[in-house]
Amino acid sequence: MRAVVRRGHELVVDTVADPVPAAGQVVVRTLCCGICGSDLHAVHGMEAMVDLGARSGEPSLIDASADIVFGHEFCAELLDHGPGTDRRLKPGTRVVSVPVMPGAAGIETLGYSNRFPGGFAETMLLAEPLLLAVPDDLSDAQAAMTEPFAVGEHAVAQSDAGADTVQLVVGCGPVGLAVIAALKARGLGPVIAADFSPARRRIAEAMGADIVIDPRQENPHARWASFGVPVSRAERSVLAMSGHAGKRAIVFECVGVPGMIQSLVEAVPPATQILVAGVCMQTDAIEPFLCINKAIELKFVLGYTPDEFAATLGRIARGQIDVAPAITGTVGLDDVPAAFAALADPERHCKIIVRPSCPSVSPQGA
Amino acid sequence: MRAVVRRGHELVVDTVADPVPAAGQVVVRTLCCGICGSDLHAVHGMEAMVDLGARSGEPSLIDASADIVFGHEFCAELLDHGPGTDRRLKPGTRVVSVPVMPGAAGIETLGYSNRFPGGFAETMLLAEPLLLAVPDDLSDAQAAMTEPFAVGEHAVAQSDAGADTVQLVVGCGPVGLAVIAALKARGLGPVIAADFSPARRRIAEAMGADIVIDPRQENPHARWASFGVPVSRAERSVLAMSGHAGKRAIVFECVGVPGMIQSLVEAVPPATQILVAGVCMQTDAIEPFLCINKAIELKFVLGYTPDEFAATLGRIARGQIDVAPAITGTVGLDDVPAAFAALADPERHCKIIVRPSCPSVSPQGA
Repeated sequence: MRAVVRRGHELVVDTVADPVPAAGQVVVRTLCCGICGSDLHAVHGMEAMVDLGARSGEPSLIDASADIVFGHEFCAELLDHGPGTDRRLKPGTRVVSVPVMPGAAGIETLGYSNRFPGGFAETMLLAEPLLLAVPDDLSDAQAAMTEPFAVGEHAVAQSDAGADTVQLVVGCGPVGLAVIAALKARGLGPVIAADFSPARRRIAEAMGADIVIDPRQENPHARWASFGVPVSRAERSVLAMSGHAGKRAIVFECVGVPGMIQSLVEAVPPATQILVAGVCMQTDAIEPFLCINKAIELKFVLGYTPDEFAATLGRIARGQIDVAPAITGTVGLDDVPAAFAALADPERHCKIIVRPSCPSVSPQGA
Repeated sequence: MRAVVRRGHELVVDTVADPVPAAGQVVVRTLCCGICGSDLHAVHGMEAMVDLGARSGEPSLIDASADIVFGHEFCAELLDHGPGTDRRLKPGTRVVSVPVMPGAAGIETLGYSNRFPGGFAETMLLAEPLLLAVPDDLSDAQAAMTEPFAVGEHAVAQSDAGADTVQLVVGCGPVGLAVIAALKARGLGPVIAADFSPARRRIAEAMGADIVIDPRQENPHARWASFGVPVSRAERSVLAMSGHAGKRAIVFECVGVPGMIQSLVEAVPPATQILVAGVCMQTDAIEPFLCINKAIELKFVLGYTPDEFAATLGRIARGQIDVAPAITGTVGLDDVPAAFAALADPERHCKIIVRPSCPSVSPQGA
């Protein structure tokens, strides 16, 4: 079959072996697969990711020097059942799945595996017990957005966002947009979104952000007081004595560059909860005394649970989350390397969908 | 009256003006006042503390170049009521109080104020509404330990410690000991305590730590698996699929030197909650990617609420917390400077109590 292969630090379109299902696995035809920011990092940063993974206590199953087919945001069509399967779903059923494959050696992540090709290939292997059928009225591309939007569902579930909080989402890339969508799907607000890119701010607005800020024009932290968030510990104490605790600030860090965490620690009100969802690959500096003095909570969030993944599919199906504004282009396999390059410009693109069955064209607007 | 005054970067014993109560204030005779690690820092680091406080959004009321009388861990005897007081408690009553003084300019911290002398002086002013009467069967020194032990009560209250968690307390200075005491007062366990100092480990054991570790002899992180904490994300996932989530690690960082947070991030199991109670005054380095990959929560904790302060007094009074093992010496005012120096050696001292009415002697064992 045809696939986009990470080989060395390049993406090449090549022919690879057709996958053969083992016990409990099914073969699917890839209909759509989104390109994730982690994929962009991984072209050159796979070695660092493997190293950091190993230091996190994960037995690394990835050989960064061998071929890898990326793609973990997929919607696929069930083609064939392997041995030892329940055949719960019929061939032809459209499916999504948490992108993991349990195996004897451990759990592998589909799209970051030498053994299991990801969604930038014509076919894939999936674990039958993890398959979720896609409702008929969802498009392939909408269904493929379950995975990236589940990241927002998880970040919000991990937060204390609720009736007495005010939310700021810093960075409106796919992660920030997923957070905005998950907050609004729960009916939470106000949601303030900040991004330097006009295009990203427009998408944030389409996702339901209540206030959208260009940090070049306005300090996103200037508005806390206007929403009833006490901006000093003294003010917080005075409010507490009067029985009005005030609102609490919840900040979602969705940028992931060095210095972001410390700049937020300096800018946010005391007692702020900061959910760190932006993936910063470099060593970073913080001032613990400032964190303590402000009683800051830094909660680092990753991934989602299978329940959150399924809930996100449900939210998209019920129209609680409209993923369409985030999709800015569609390409065939031959144009995936160009699409990786195009994603560097936030004015041009946000989420590009790969359709392995598409003829090759340049990345197009949705 | 006589007092220990921070003047420049020195502690000097001098005569200062007797405090005169304003509306809502009472005059008390200081019976006992503990020396806090923050006091040790503040002799030379007051300027940095003021600067960081200002950067935390606190209007700074402290002039670090003017005289300050330290001491915020006090037990005192009510001498006289100022104007506009309710006279709820009789003169002669022993009292403790959250060490704050609300005023027109804002809330000042007793012991870190140019206007209100702290407990290293013969008398103090306290805010009448904040006074708590000390139960008769508590000694002055026991009551004075309400404040430092409330810090542990707060840290534990801010944590997710419960029936399904395993606790590690890193550093058995006064903060770590207070955390151990608060955990055991709630009946939580196991509590693992780690400190390089044999003397501190003995006190940790007396406070109820279930396991006490010398990090030179044993890696404190070697035992997580034995308590049912999954030590890799893969193991965690496998457990979750089988319906047994496993225990969660809760770590209390009570050391406060650069590198501690990152060393914990590297060593702890995934999904660990780290309560940072140790006060690190220097800029510190962390690896956000590692924090994200392990889904670490860093919760920085400071102080306590008035309710937690009162609860701690109650726990000491009911015998749920025995503060005695932490008290290693008692001095009069003249020996406070020597006591500050003596506290540098964890083998000799942990908590030294200042008794302003005591004749001066060298710091003695309790």
